[in-house]
Amino acid sequence: MIRSLAFTTQGRLHSKDIEMFLMPTLLSDTTLFLWIDLEAPTPEETKFVLEDLFHFHPLSIEDCVQVSPSPKVEEYTPKEEDKFAPYLFMVIHAVDYSRKDGVFATSELNFFLGKNFLVTYHAGPLRSVSLTEERATKSTTHIARAPDRVAYNLLDLIVDNYKPALEELSLEIAELEQEALKNPTKRTLNKILQVKKEVLHLRQIIGPQREVLARFARGEFKLIRAHMVPYYRNVYDALFHISELAQNYTDSLTGILQVYLNMSSNRTGEVVKLLTLITVITTPLTIVGTWYGMNFHDMPEFQLKHGYWYALILMVVSTGATYWYFKKKKWF
Amino acid sequence: MIRSLAFTTQGRLHSKDIEMFLMPTLLSDTTLFLWIDLEAPTPEETKFVLEDLFHFHPLSIEDCVQVSPSPKVEEYTPKEEDKFAPYLFMVIHAVDYSRKDGVFATSELNFFLGKNFLVTYHAGPLRSVSLTEERATKSTTHIARAPDRVAYNLLDLIVDNYKPALEELSLEIAELEQEALKNPTKRTLNKILQVKKEVLHLRQIIGPQREVLARFARGEFKLIRAHMVPYYRNVYDALFHISELAQNYTDSLTGILQVYLNMSSNRTGEVVKLLTLITVITTPLTIVGTWYGMNFHDMPEFQLKHGYWYALILMVVSTGATYWYFKKKKWF
Amino acid sequence: MIRSLAFTTQGRLHSKDIEMFLMPTLLSDTTLFLWIDLEAPTPEETKFVLEDLFHFHPLSIEDCVQVSPSPKVEEYTPKEEDKFAPYLFMVIHAVDYSRKDGVFATSELNFFLGKNFLVTYHAGPLRSVSLTEERATKSTTHIARAPDRVAYNLLDLIVDNYKPALEELSLEIAELEQEALKNPTKRTLNKILQVKKEVLHLRQIIGPQREVLARFARGEFKLIRAHMVPYYRNVYDALFHISELAQNYTDSLTGILQVYLNMSSNRTGEVVKLLTLITVITTPLTIVGTWYGMNFHDMPEFQLKHGYWYALILMVVSTGATYWYFKKKKWF
Amino acid sequence: MIRSLAFTTQGRLHSKDIEMFLMPTLLSDTTLFLWIDLEAPTPEETKFVLEDLFHFHPLSIEDCVQVSPSPKVEEYTPKEEDKFAPYLFMVIHAVDYSRKDGVFATSELNFFLGKNFLVTYHAGPLRSVSLTEERATKSTTHIARAPDRVAYNLLDLIVDNYKPALEELSLEIAELEQEALKNPTKRTLNKILQVKKEVLHLRQIIGPQREVLARFARGEFKLIRAHMVPYYRNVYDALFHISELAQNYTDSLTGILQVYLNMSSNRTGEVVKLLTLITVITTPLTIVGTWYGMNFHDMPEFQLKHGYWYALILMVVSTGATYWYFKKKKWF
Amino acid sequence: MIRSLAFTTQGRLHSKDIEMFLMPTLLSDTTLFLWIDLEAPTPEETKFVLEDLFHFHPLSIEDCVQVSPSPKVEEYTPKEEDKFAPYLFMVIHAVDYSRKDGVFATSELNFFLGKNFLVTYHAGPLRSVSLTEERATKSTTHIARAPDRVAYNLLDLIVDNYKPALEELSLEIAELEQEALKNPTKRTLNKILQVKKEVLHLRQIIGPQREVLARFARGEFKLIRAHMVPYYRNVYDALFHISELAQNYTDSLTGILQVYLNMSSNRTGEVVKLLTLITVITTPLTIVGTWYGMNFHDMPEFQLKHGYWYALILMVVSTGATYWYFKKKKWF
Repeated sequence: MIRSLAFTTQGRLHSKDIEMFLMPTLLSDTTLFLWIDLEAPTPEETKFVLEDLFHFHPLSIEDCVQVSPSPKVEEYTPKEEDKFAPYLFMVIHAVDYSRKDGVFATSELNFFLGKNFLVTYHAGPLRSVSLTEERATKSTTHIARAPDRVAYNLLDLIVDNYKPALEELSLEIAELEQEALKNPTKRTLNKILQVKKEVLHLRQIIGPQREVLARFARGEFKLIRAHMVPYYRNVYDALFHISELAQNYTDSLTGILQVYLNMSSNRTGEVVKLLTLITVITTPLTIVGTWYGMNFHDMPEFQLKHGYWYALILMVVSTGATYWYFKKKKWF
Repeated sequence: MIRSLAFTTQGRLHSKDIEMFLMPTLLSDTTLFLWIDLEAPTPEETKFVLEDLFHFHPLSIEDCVQVSPSPKVEEYTPKEEDKFAPYLFMVIHAVDYSRKDGVFATSELNFFLGKNFLVTYHAGPLRSVSLTEERATKSTTHIARAPDRVAYNLLDLIVDNYKPALEELSLEIAELEQEALKNPTKRTLNKILQVKKEVLHLRQIIGPQREVLARFARGEFKLIRAHMVPYYRNVYDALFHISELAQNYTDSLTGILQVYLNMSSNRTGEVVKLLTLITVITTPLTIVGTWYGMNFHDMPEFQLKHGYWYALILMVVSTGATYWYFKKKKWF
Repeated sequence: MIRSLAFTTQGRLHSKDIEMFLMPTLLSDTTLFLWIDLEAPTPEETKFVLEDLFHFHPLSIEDCVQVSPSPKVEEYTPKEEDKFAPYLFMVIHAVDYSRKDGVFATSELNFFLGKNFLVTYHAGPLRSVSLTEERATKSTTHIARAPDRVAYNLLDLIVDNYKPALEELSLEIAELEQEALKNPTKRTLNKILQVKKEVLHLRQIIGPQREVLARFARGEFKLIRAHMVPYYRNVYDALFHISELAQNYTDSLTGILQVYLNMSSNRTGEVVKLLTLITVITTPLTIVGTWYGMNFHDMPEFQLKHGYWYALILMVVSTGATYWYFKKKKWF
Repeated sequence: MIRSLAFTTQGRLHSKDIEMFLMPTLLSDTTLFLWIDLEAPTPEETKFVLEDLFHFHPLSIEDCVQVSPSPKVEEYTPKEEDKFAPYLFMVIHAVDYSRKDGVFATSELNFFLGKNFLVTYHAGPLRSVSLTEERATKSTTHIARAPDRVAYNLLDLIVDNYKPALEELSLEIAELEQEALKNPTKRTLNKILQVKKEVLHLRQIIGPQREVLARFARGEFKLIRAHMVPYYRNVYDALFHISELAQNYTDSLTGILQVYLNMSSNRTGEVVKLLTLITVITTPLTIVGTWYGMNFHDMPEFQLKHGYWYALILMVVSTGATYWYFKKKKWF
Repeated sequence: MIRSLAFTTQGRLHSKDIEMFLMPTLLSDTTLFLWIDLEAPTPEETKFVLEDLFHFHPLSIEDCVQVSPSPKVEEYTPKEEDKFAPYLFMVIHAVDYSRKDGVFATSELNFFLGKNFLVTYHAGPLRSVSLTEERATKSTTHIARAPDRVAYNLLDLIVDNYKPALEELSLEIAELEQEALKNPTKRTLNKILQVKKEVLHLRQIIGPQREVLARFARGEFKLIRAHMVPYYRNVYDALFHISELAQNYTDSLTGILQVYLNMSSNRTGEVVKLLTLITVITTPLTIVGTWYGMNFHDMPEFQLKHGYWYALILMVVSTGATYWYFKKKKWF
């Protein structure tokens, strides 16, 4: 699907859903800014826009069409034989709101950003793209003045979309903390490690993204006008904060793991203590019982009147003394 | 609430609590230095001061009004269309003296520092601001000569306010050390991890703050006059020392954790040892008792005169020997 | 074995399997590009090509002939007395598809890349070399225009060959995760550490390789034409992604190790719990039995009618109470 | 206390214990080099020397008088209104020979180093200062030619004084290693962690000191003449070596901790083994005894002649077999 | 002992074992290259060569004579008053083949490398020096053309000598791996930590050495001619590979430690399992025995004919059931 929008340099909407044959004309008109959004395009559409219309460098087309594991930004300046205008090619990953199977689903958004055009390419519908488009169509004056402004809006929304995922993670970690303290089971360990993996995954997504935006924030690219750089720096700051949060999460999870491991070893300790206590308390009883179970004929205790009661008293006293001794030592 | 102070270039107090309509006039007088402090201002006050009076860049106004998770400093130089004078925008976090729920409460202080003005913005009352204001009003000559001097005073007080929090942490860590050695309970582990988290939090607050002040200490900003740079370097040194202390605390806590874990595993070891000792010492007794509890008719020991006494002696001797053996091996 | 190919500057195949005596002539023809591939060459062949034909620097010849543990790239520029043309010497390691004994087998590929020649040297047959040769012979126009293009193709194929090895590793790690959770044995620990070693080994192969390609991606070498640099950057990106995957694997393995260690200590805990349970449940029974095994003549319980049945009831009740108590405490 | 020495540019002693009123005259004589040492001075002395005589920058005076937690070096170049000559201000920490309570006591030495003067300031007597003074008074020619030479001598002696402390640490670590292997007690753990803390403390003292001297070694300061730089580099090398030793100590202590923890868990293992052994060996005995303690009337073994002896033989044989079985399995 | 060799610029041997009085003459002849090797020299020899003949800087002489803990390289350029020619001073550590007491013995080799001289200084005989001398005397043409060439040869041999030590370490690690898996004892832990210490020591020797050679490999020194730089880079590469191997060894040892600790905790687990098994299996037997050992007169089982046999069957069945239950659960 190809969606296309053309704006005047004042940011007014010029035309929408432009016919393919009109595109070259509009593109060559330098007073217009053209935004073409390719959403799950057919190979023909891809070829038409990226190759025939813009003549982008084959490498960037390849990177755009393929699934890229890591975000990147590259500047393409035409050589003599090249037919394209100078442009920035960027791959950024948006994160999905609904976490399926406890794994962050990411979707790729590819940008081709030129002086008076922006081409965005993505395999499925993206909330940030449709939202930006809607805003740009309704109240264009601010958002749609230039490609670098629209690109900023897209990036801002993508980074904003990380927040719900982060909050969900934060909730899960708080739950795990309670679980590790109060009811640690095998499942807890598994879940701790699962969430840790997710956080690591998140950090791996965020890390290179931050690197890419740092280059914008430093004003490395001439296609981003100087007065737009603070805006990009803002996006960078937001990403920086997210990666700090992720670092926090990792630290929390390490602490939770330590609590968990300690709890489970404590439990064994408690069990051993119980075993020992029972052994200790029943020992005098067993000894007395075993001793007077002997079959010697001349055991003087048997001759005693009330011998049995003496044994009973001996047993009660020794058990009581043992009990009192360990009670005093704060064993239970 | 808006508080405002105007000083002459000699640092004398010119006027106080200036009427809003007078502010533009005073601001345009280059022989005056204007300090406007916005404490929990209404949106109208914010708009009047930041937008209408100073025409600050919208991004910095946004950063100022919103809660920023991380400190920052940015230089804004006007472009042709901009109406503001060059200024530094800075966000710094003060730490609260009273630690509620064992968490450092931080409050944000925003600075707009220009050649002849300083605008401070904060959501609630801040001790460092009120103290600086008091000092500046009383004995202005030194403190209030210029915006960079007042800003230095504010920063110096903010960093000073970290000290009580650090001392409290240090006390808690010393207590935990004692507790881990003498009376380790589940609560101890929990508290160790809690304090560790706090220290990590503190380091996360201090870290970026230090980065911000490092830029002042290197003399990166033209709005800070060269002879003020050593003062900022002093604030940087204090922050550096705090972050070193925090590193120390982390190391101490790691050590305490190791003591705790060892103590709790030692305890299980002690319990097992007791269990073994009791088993070992009662074994000869039980064996003798069980053996002579057998019902064989022709057991020669039963025919012996004083057989019972021999058994008693055997039992006492074997128990004594076991006891002596383990005593010699330093088991108890 | 020497294989040789000569292409015109348009990338057409000029000649193949060139006679040795013709080589100097072809080499001196600047409109031709010569690719000589030495596969497990005899010392004479090595000497002829590297020394007599190209007069390469003795150090690079030594590095080429010897087995190098780490990849490298070096630029050789001739001094007055040197007879060689400027060239790049590069050592890259390809990884073998079939992992023998759980160890990545690597084979070395040496490049000498000049303005109009490429010499490749390897000790055994390499899939990437034969594939590139085949492609270059069939449809030369694209692949074989210049030495830097052919070198790129070789590097691209070498990096591609890492993928099956990575997938196999990934499978093994997933298996280990299941094994650690469900059936942890000594063998599991051993295998976890084995795979961890392999991953570390892989990272050690990839790391310096990445450094070498980073230099190409930065466009450090004049012999690589500017418009080829993005291609080399692509190879670099692929390597970067592989090293990120390897990092992931290490993290996963650390988590699996933690699960394993916890599982095995949990098991001991379970065993201790069983021991305690049995002791606890049989204790009342043993006590009653031992007690009434005493031989006192006047034990009142023996005089009771149905004394035995009372003992039986006492025993059943106390065992039942113990059972119920621990059942309530969720011990089993 | 103020000690003062004046040397001619040839390094000869000019005067000693100069009267205060003479100091300004001697200072203004550029053919003289003035060394003033303030040892635990009164506030008046401090004020006279630092403020009235040299007019040092107020910040550096503040840093000098206060206790500084971290070493530093700063260059002060006079602005128009300043009355001081350009100087270097440096804070260095000497370590005390006698370690009280297992904590390194450090004492601060402040330097003000100018073209023809050196002011040293310290709160108590320092061995390195008195030694340097003594040497400079006796055989001045070499040591006392210039302020940078005297400063080098002081620094060299300060770094030399670290050695006894390091040797003591090294001895303690060797002792701990033995203790952990042979007789690990709770005290051992505590001591290991104590020494680890000390080593960390030492590294924290050394680290910034090294940074300060690195700046001298790089020849950053114009007040240190070029031919003196290698001498400062020597001091830097010595500090570098100390910090490497401290790293070694940390590694050793980590190893000792691991031995300790393993020893204490091994001990529990040994105890459990003993418990098991005793249970195992006495089991056949107890079973035989319990079995023949039953009161069935028709137990055939009781009818047997020599039944008791058969039971005895059965018991001896089964105990012996168990013993032999576990002996073979190398349990004891 | 002083050995001396003079070569012509063509690399021919000019003279050998030169008389001391001739040295100044030969040194001043710029067509000659002089190599003086001081092996365990007397103070007089040291003074004659280093001070009187070459007038080296006193600091470098001090460094040369003293034992230096860390390698270094320094460039000395003469100032007006200095009488020495520009030279490089370098300290490198050779490692001893025979490892006494499991500790790498290192011996120091000092170089003074000038435009037409090389002075080497070492406390004892060094294989690399004698070998280089031998080669230089026999077939001088290649090795002895210039001081930087001879120095390269010495460095190359020193680095080569690390190999046997590395192989021995590698063997020991492989043995430890087997030992930790099959027969872990206290000695194993101790040896693991011992070898780990050695590897750390090796890394500490190699690390700064690599830094020194990196400076040569970058071509930082003018006294090393440009065409010699690749050779030094080769030595650097070899050192780099050694430090990678050492990193590998550390990783392996960490893994072995983990196996060891797991093995020893597994062992305790096995012992506990055995204890539990024995308790579990003998429990029904003991219960039956204890129960029928009671002295109640009216126990119905005693009245039963064949009561004893019923008890026997009950015991055998319950023991068998327990055995079968745990067999099914794969306990043994």
